[in-house]
Amino acid sequence: MLAVHLENGAVTVRDVPLPPRPAGFALLRLLTAGICNTDLELQRGYYGFTGTPGHEFVAEVIEADTYALVGKRVAGEINLACAHCEWCRRGLGRHCPTRTVLGIVNHPGAFAEFLTLPERNLHVLPDHLASDRAVFLEPLAAACEILDQCAIPPHERIAVLGDGKLGLLIALVLNAHGYPVRQYGRHAEKLAISARAGVETELIAGPLPTAAYEWVVDATGNPEGLRAAAAMTRPRGTVILKSTVHGLVPFDTAPIIVNELTLVGSRCGRMEEALPLIDHELIHVEQMISARYPLSRAPEAFAHAAQRGVLKVLLEP
Amino acid sequence: MLAVHLENGAVTVRDVPLPPRPAGFALLRLLTAGICNTDLELQRGYYGFTGTPGHEFVAEVIEADTYALVGKRVAGEINLACAHCEWCRRGLGRHCPTRTVLGIVNHPGAFAEFLTLPERNLHVLPDHLASDRAVFLEPLAAACEILDQCAIPPHERIAVLGDGKLGLLIALVLNAHGYPVRQYGRHAEKLAISARAGVETELIAGPLPTAAYEWVVDATGNPEGLRAAAAMTRPRGTVILKSTVHGLVPFDTAPIIVNELTLVGSRCGRMEEALPLIDHELIHVEQMISARYPLSRAPEAFAHAAQRGVLKVLLEP
Repeated sequence: MLAVHLENGAVTVRDVPLPPRPAGFALLRLLTAGICNTDLELQRGYYGFTGTPGHEFVAEVIEADTYALVGKRVAGEINLACAHCEWCRRGLGRHCPTRTVLGIVNHPGAFAEFLTLPERNLHVLPDHLASDRAVFLEPLAAACEILDQCAIPPHERIAVLGDGKLGLLIALVLNAHGYPVRQYGRHAEKLAISARAGVETELIAGPLPTAAYEWVVDATGNPEGLRAAAAMTRPRGTVILKSTVHGLVPFDTAPIIVNELTLVGSRCGRMEEALPLIDHELIHVEQMISARYPLSRAPEAFAHAAQRGVLKVLLEP
Repeated sequence: MLAVHLENGAVTVRDVPLPPRPAGFALLRLLTAGICNTDLELQRGYYGFTGTPGHEFVAEVIEADTYALVGKRVAGEINLACAHCEWCRRGLGRHCPTRTVLGIVNHPGAFAEFLTLPERNLHVLPDHLASDRAVFLEPLAAACEILDQCAIPPHERIAVLGDGKLGLLIALVLNAHGYPVRQYGRHAEKLAISARAGVETELIAGPLPTAAYEWVVDATGNPEGLRAAAAMTRPRGTVILKSTVHGLVPFDTAPIIVNELTLVGSRCGRMEEALPLIDHELIHVEQMISARYPLSRAPEAFAHAAQRGVLKVLLEP
């Protein structure tokens, strides 16, 4: 089968054997996959990654222990957890200390014609839900994670800093949950997507407001974002960190301590929270698709996804 | 009167005029003052400070609008707040945006024979409470601030990283509130102080435990502390930042985001919380006094306070 291979920053496409299917796992045939900023970070050396990336996908179940799953269209939780430890029992398998992670840590990813995942990771998709929309479930769940971690009071004004793919999904999720959101970004055409859903948007031209919000989400994806987000936050307020930046960031802790800010690191979320938002069309994600490529042209697709102004690039078999 | 003067890293003692007493302020005669790590940071250039430092003190009221205050022995809140803004109305004058801060921001400090503070900042001390103990109220309030900010569940194990003055006070406060505390430090003689109060202590010899605590306090006062504290914290756990470090700290945000840690910056606290702990002898602070100097020998006192292994150095008229 065809599989994308990442090594030392180079993206290639290889012909590799079909992955074996362990007991409890399903063998999945890829329908569509999305390139995420994390994939671009992996290309830059994050996690010292070598292998097949890809963790946003929709696929068809080809083989499974559970007969009823075969033939179903599914999305999947990306953390392969032990199901027995304290974290797994608390429903937080995404923090299981022995987990592997699809396309990120020790489990081959979704940028391949076939992939495997434990059956318990799968979410069967409703027939009416297009794969082009369902492929956003994973990043949308990451956006939903904010509300799983932080009890933001109703009607609280929230600033979202950054208008990349994740920034847009975060603004859309918070907006769909009834929060007044103001999104700050540098791309008018991206901000237009959240503006159409009712998010207040601001194209950054001059200085950002200072000490203006109790809640600020940093989704800039760049090292400067944390500093900017902290400066926008009122004393005793909260900055939610959604940007994974590779490497060390020079960071002044003094404003955090003097203003007694809370910083909350936030990563993957639960697809159960994300599915209704797409299914009931509370969020229109398909407008974020910038391009689609066959797997065989993955090097071009990665280069395209890394360009300024580009949103979601899909890979298809 | 004699007043300590800090400028470009040099500590001198000057003869200066008595400070004027504005309406609503009290004129205070110093009885004893403590040198804090913040004073040593100010000496190193933190806040670009020039002037008279000092914010831990016990003094006698010499003049005040309120006649009953005159002759009383007092400690004082160090933030001079407007008393009218939203923060002040919420009882958080220490975040008042127009505040000045005794010996730190635009208000001459306590390392002088006389100082002024608004009457509303003063706490009259019980007669039986020795000044050598009451001078710890300000840093003890800073230690208490942790419990004002974070709802730590009862009986939760807490790690305190660092065995400096503030680290010891934090361990003692958390211990006095019934939490099982384990303090990690590099000075056996300092750790002995918290150990005598029942704190579990560990002299750091090898690697620190990994992902071992839900709650970790970084009171190391060095840039490495935050990294070490984050590594000791379990996924979804909380690191409380009590170290003010001058300048930029190289910081890897990836573990914060991957493990979804919460970081809480923490600064000054309320003396009302600290007073009963000293008054009822729940905490024995006087064993932390390493030396005392007259104001006229402040340069020696600062040099002494900066030496490794030294705890509280007092300055007296």
